[in-house]
Amino acid sequence: MISSNRLISGIRPTGELHVGNYYGALKGLVEQQERYDARYFIADIHSLTTHPKPDDLRGFVIGTARNYLAGGLDPERCTLYVQSSLAAEICELHTYLSMVMPLGELLRVPTFKEKAKRHPDNVNYGLVGYPVLMAADILLFKSQTVMVGDDQLVHLELAREIARRFNQLYGDVFPEPQPLLDNAARIPSLSGAGKMSKSDGAAAYVSLQDDRAAVGEKTRKALSDPLRGYRSQPGHPTAEGCNVFRLHTFFTGESERAAIAGACRAAGIGCVECKERLADSFSAVIEPFRERHMRLSEDDAVDILRIGRDKARESARSVIAEVRQAMGLLML
Amino acid sequence: MISSNRLISGIRPTGELHVGNYYGALKGLVEQQERYDARYFIADIHSLTTHPKPDDLRGFVIGTARNYLAGGLDPERCTLYVQSSLAAEICELHTYLSMVMPLGELLRVPTFKEKAKRHPDNVNYGLVGYPVLMAADILLFKSQTVMVGDDQLVHLELAREIARRFNQLYGDVFPEPQPLLDNAARIPSLSGAGKMSKSDGAAAYVSLQDDRAAVGEKTRKALSDPLRGYRSQPGHPTAEGCNVFRLHTFFTGESERAAIAGACRAAGIGCVECKERLADSFSAVIEPFRERHMRLSEDDAVDILRIGRDKARESARSVIAEVRQAMGLLML
Ligand code: SF4
Ligand code: SF4
Repeated sequence: MISSNRLISGIRPTGELHVGNYYGALKGLVEQQERYDARYFIADIHSLTTHPKPDDLRGFVIGTARNYLAGGLDPERCTLYVQSSLAAEICELHTYLSMVMPLGELLRVPTFKEKAKRHPDNVNYGLVGYPVLMAADILLFKSQTVMVGDDQLVHLELAREIARRFNQLYGDVFPEPQPLLDNAARIPSLSGAGKMSKSDGAAAYVSLQDDRAAVGEKTRKALSDPLRGYRSQPGHPTAEGCNVFRLHTFFTGESERAAIAGACRAAGIGCVECKERLADSFSAVIEPFRERHMRLSEDDAVDILRIGRDKARESARSVIAEVRQAMGLLML
Repeated sequence: MISSNRLISGIRPTGELHVGNYYGALKGLVEQQERYDARYFIADIHSLTTHPKPDDLRGFVIGTARNYLAGGLDPERCTLYVQSSLAAEICELHTYLSMVMPLGELLRVPTFKEKAKRHPDNVNYGLVGYPVLMAADILLFKSQTVMVGDDQLVHLELAREIARRFNQLYGDVFPEPQPLLDNAARIPSLSGAGKMSKSDGAAAYVSLQDDRAAVGEKTRKALSDPLRGYRSQPGHPTAEGCNVFRLHTFFTGESERAAIAGACRAAGIGCVECKERLADSFSAVIEPFRERHMRLSEDDAVDILRIGRDKARESARSVIAEVRQAMGLLML
């Protein structure tokens, strides 16, 4: 931490990560822990809107902590906690903030309207309040900065409005949090169809848990230049011309990439070898991750989450005390 | 307490009470503490939907505790606490319950629709969630019984539905709470216009803080039989015929009331004397209240509220732990 600027960001509890996540969510969090007074939380309460199976949720939360720690979050440099381990504080603030946020504006949020349209039977009260709970996550620490994807900017604007409305009613308590875009790279799928995602089947992504053999096998089946039918034809080694080359632009260093491009254009390298090199590049990211993951037990992760909870709770409680005082609630 | 049936009821934080409240809210609470394992809370979080002035709210909460204790709530027989002193537990449960309650049903609640119509600029997210917060108040103790006015039956039905929905998703955690109607008597206003209420001005009600002289003065101006113009005319001493007599039916014993009725019909008693007797009846309720109120300091009230909080919190926490377990949230 080189600044006292309080940054916060939420992490969705999921199963295994893929190499796309590495350059997506993870890398930004790892970088910002060097620059900010950073708090990262695993957003298990948010995930309740969709009613995950309890055992899945438990596994995902611990698994996500291990993954992000193995991916470079450093408990000496950031505070990592589970959202529900601060449920008392977050939900209390959430309830108070719900009293100052107009319902109409929440109903007009585009992501809400879209979800309500897709799952009309599952529009629960908590779903429309998602931005209010997110505001509580942020304001609980008087965070000045929130690292978000651009799809979350609308929600952050509501959190800013909630802060303004609260301050108007009860005095100057909260700063208006500013966005820091995570600039997550859109890593393409192995199949070439859109973004790398686990929902497109195991052949579409390389997991951060895959060993070198599995990585090689998946990468060999990746989509390459559809116009290069034979080894003797030259290929089109650009982000647009070849999906494998596009993946190289994220995972392979510049000089090696230039050599590949030159050889491909001269038909001096075959796609099989080119994919083998991509598999090596994937492995250069995966192997250190796997090693750290292996060394970090579930119990280690739980210990780190407990330390994070205690650190986060201390500052949260002083904000809650200030909020109660401002609203006229007794401190018995 | 003669039963282990857990009853709960909320008390609105207000200023002074009047004799109408005595036979309204208060009397039922005092009676039920003998029959149930009763918890009563001063509902300060609910009152935040209308943004009371912080200093007013603070004063009202302590004042309400003193008034209800002076009115007969006995800390040996019931648990009295301030809602916000259990904010952590209530709001946590409230947030979880918000994930299982369909928004559409909340928007259809008649009391919500009416408030939304009256104060269209003040429809906040928390207002539509009032029944969800009320469900949290109730379910936090797995309450089996809820003492409510009949205007709250719709909300209680929603609390029952929330309990069912939660149990369906996460297993059999909550009992479905049953209503116990408070059967609050509708004490008429001194002016004869509707129910006694502070909002109709000081002449319309007798405060539990009024001394005998003030009670006499207000009662002398009360509406009596409009058809009895002169002392020598007989009156109509029935609940419908004379507002003063109607007040006697609540505050004056049966035999004295029969004597008054007989004398009035024979023009043997004048309205001035009759009102003086009513003032005596008011005082018979007010004086013991005032005495107890004087003996009970603010500090005493705060001490009692602290004991109540600690007792209530202990059982609340075990329910929260069970809820977290059921939903798959970790207990770090
Ligand atoms: S050699 Fe590599 S860059 Fe060239 S077409 Fe084959 S996969 Fe694409
Ligand atoms: S004497 Fe009493 S009951 Fe009869 S009319 Fe007067 S106020 Fe009413």
